[in-house]
Amino acid sequence: MRRVGWLPSARMARITDPDLLLPRARSGDRRALARLITLVEDGRPEGDEALAAVYPKTGTAWTVGLTGAPGAGKSTLTNRLIGHVRSGGTEVATVAVDPSSPFTGGAILGDRVRMQDHIDDPGVYIRSMASRGHLGGIAAATPRVVSLLDGIGFPEILIETVGVGQAEVEIAASADTTLVVLNPGWGDSIQAAKAGLLEIGDVFVVNKADRPGTNETLKDLKQMLELGGHGDWWPPVVTTVASTGEGTDELVAAIAEHRNHLESSGSLAALRADRAVADVRAALEVHLSDRVRNALGDDGWEAVRADVVERRLDPWSAARHLLDRVTAQ
Amino acid sequence: MRRVGWLPSARMARITDPDLLLPRARSGDRRALARLITLVEDGRPEGDEALAAVYPKTGTAWTVGLTGAPGAGKSTLTNRLIGHVRSGGTEVATVAVDPSSPFTGGAILGDRVRMQDHIDDPGVYIRSMASRGHLGGIAAATPRVVSLLDGIGFPEILIETVGVGQAEVEIAASADTTLVVLNPGWGDSIQAAKAGLLEIGDVFVVNKADRPGTNETLKDLKQMLELGGHGDWWPPVVTTVASTGEGTDELVAAIAEHRNHLESSGSLAALRADRAVADVRAALEVHLSDRVRNALGDDGWEAVRADVVERRLDPWSAARHLLDRVTAQ
Repeated sequence: MRRVGWLPSARMARITDPDLLLPRARSGDRRALARLITLVEDGRPEGDEALAAVYPKTGTAWTVGLTGAPGAGKSTLTNRLIGHVRSGGTEVATVAVDPSSPFTGGAILGDRVRMQDHIDDPGVYIRSMASRGHLGGIAAATPRVVSLLDGIGFPEILIETVGVGQAEVEIAASADTTLVVLNPGWGDSIQAAKAGLLEIGDVFVVNKADRPGTNETLKDLKQMLELGGHGDWWPPVVTTVASTGEGTDELVAAIAEHRNHLESSGSLAALRADRAVADVRAALEVHLSDRVRNALGDDGWEAVRADVVERRLDPWSAARHLLDRVTAQ
Repeated sequence: MRRVGWLPSARMARITDPDLLLPRARSGDRRALARLITLVEDGRPEGDEALAAVYPKTGTAWTVGLTGAPGAGKSTLTNRLIGHVRSGGTEVATVAVDPSSPFTGGAILGDRVRMQDHIDDPGVYIRSMASRGHLGGIAAATPRVVSLLDGIGFPEILIETVGVGQAEVEIAASADTTLVVLNPGWGDSIQAAKAGLLEIGDVFVVNKADRPGTNETLKDLKQMLELGGHGDWWPPVVTTVASTGEGTDELVAAIAEHRNHLESSGSLAALRADRAVADVRAALEVHLSDRVRNALGDDGWEAVRADVVERRLDPWSAARHLLDRVTAQ
């Protein structure tokens, strides 16, 4: 990507035509890219157009999801991974997801500070995504934004989630390689198990491994992983000290090994096909919810809800009536 | 319920009119009830009618869900709970759910043998439900069948799941009181954590508590439960030996305590309102899937799927087109 013809910010903010924005974004114009992402996030028709235009070019990026409890060091680790990718000259995009926050702030702001090593590097693009408060908003928007970044041409995309809420875990699990980040100390592996993280990790990272209790955590974690059985990939456990960079090379090697496994076993095609179909299903649900709400209005939905809750109307008849009303629009 | 006017089986199998079947089922005719449940399970319009007719009378039954790994002793425990309810003269229905099996057989057949203490008791109704192979079939059908049993007048309903698959865990968690059944031995609490059971249990049962390792399992389990924090209900842990009946009274007391907590705290109304709305949403998805499939046919859906998987069409445009086609019907 080469930077070409910057426009003043105020003018860029008004441009919504994907035919203008896409070539600029592809040639490295970050404001054009940011504008496109906002159009996609907001569910604007121009965002849909942009996605439809780039979709045939997707499937080349390798996506890495990071999940784990807040404070586990995911942002510092992301920073290290960005540094590694950049040392090879490759461009990298990072999507930081915080569905719990209605605004981009708090933890995410801190993350961006931790990622500031790369803030002036034109080969790095960092985007924070926070919930805009509408149903399933961020969970629905993230795969769309990741596809846009993929289609624009980023060969590496990191997806970092702040916590271990259900939506965040699903987002991290939808990456090609999912990293689960833990810390030393009794109970962390159990917390990870409770949050459903043991099931989704392709690579486990015990970060802050210069602290006491690392060996116990490694032992606990490996025992738990053995209990669960595994398919044709046995998830490796890597120790890191993200603050110093220790273990980054081993982590990068584990990610590469997982990528190689998926590519050589043929699992990658099946994984991506499943993900595409899941995206269709999720989008169908979001569209349907929107149409039901539009057809009924908030008052109408409240009335149906009250009928069901007070048992004047059963839920299954209610669903049939709602769908009939949407269909009759 | 009083038994009245039995009809020959062959004739009953042909009756589909809820106006005929409902009064019979209410007065204790188990074949009429079985027929109604089949109509509900199969999604027949007569089943919908029956549900709509009884729905205003639902909300009086107390539902207890049992989940845990296969072999944990859930059926034997269910047998004990049935015995306890019956000793008080109350009628009880049991729904045994096995989404993994396309036929009613295997584990379920064994369960029915273990429940045979009650097979000749007219105050006990036991129904096995197995997946009929269609999308979301059993997960969608179970709450409908439970509502029918509730509306027919059963004051106690037990819902036993065979394993800890996602659909089964959701079904068990949708009961008023959810029992999570474990066994002594290292790893069982961790397995429960991994399956997401620690989050959903209202009462934990360590069954087969005459075996070695019971104290360690109790300790592990309590530590894990403490780690997770809790709301206004701290889930008790009960030990049982279902094969001898030991601990049944304590388990029954724990269930009663949980019921009392939900009723006196006002949580019950909120819980049931949430469940009703979740049922509407789930039904909307099932109806929409059916309509999409009907509108496109299997070949049509395959073609859309192939377009998305081969990246000729993005998932979000695909969903919009699909919904437009359903809407245009």
